[in-house]
Amino acid sequence: MDVNVIAKHFTDFYYQTFGNDRSQLAALYRPESMLTWEGKQILGVQAIVEKLTTLPFTKVQHQVVTMDAQPSWPNTNLIVSVTGFLKVDEDNPIPFSQVFHLVSSDNSFYVYNDIFRLNLG
Amino acid sequence: MDVNVIAKHFTDFYYQTFGNDRSQLAALYRPESMLTWEGKQILGVQAIVEKLTTLPFTKVQHQVVTMDAQPSWPNTNLIVSVTGFLKVDEDNPIPFSQVFHLVSSDNSFYVYNDIFRLNLG
Repeated sequence: MDVNVIAKHFTDFYYQTFGNDRSQLAALYRPESMLTWEGKQILGVQAIVEKLTTLPFTKVQHQVVTMDAQPSWPNTNLIVSVTGFLKVDEDNPIPFSQVFHLVSSDNSFYVYNDIFRLNLG
Repeated sequence: MDVNVIAKHFTDFYYQTFGNDRSQLAALYRPESMLTWEGKQILGVQAIVEKLTTLPFTKVQHQVVTMDAQPSWPNTNLIVSVTGFLKVDEDNPIPFSQVFHLVSSDNSFYVYNDIFRLNLG
């Protein structure tokens, strides 16, 4: 598998969906999925989607600057590391970094690990 | 296992060793380890240590600002995401982000995935 192609497809879909309708991200998570959002640990698709859909902004856009992918252990899975800028409503863009661990299942992938941080310095 | 405790021990050791004697980082990698350094993909302990020890600076110090850890799949492994500042020689600190995937083996861990990026914006 070409991890860079999969990672590009995944991040394009993820950030586009995040901007358009965050509730649709539920399709990417499972009950065992973990999200750490700005240090807060959240377990499972239901709690993750509740967190994402209740973030206090209406307009949001991610600008990806770097995206790196590697096959994970075992090598049917992959790790994707993203850095870029988050533009919220009319505020100035804020640098962020996000890591996804995508686990393969039924010829597809779901998000097992998700760690998001704003880089406020 | 407490992933935060392991992650803290690991990153303390990693960044301290990086500052003191980068060649000693060889102990943390194996032939199957992967490093993506500023987009360049490097495979295996020998090539990784060669890359790290030939980086063009003499004095280097990492200041960790955030560190998040999660159990990975399978849950004997863990993912650690770090953001912070890299201070090289007499230059101004540069924001960086780094992801480690630590795989358990023989009651210890080694670095399977390592992705490093400067956040130059």
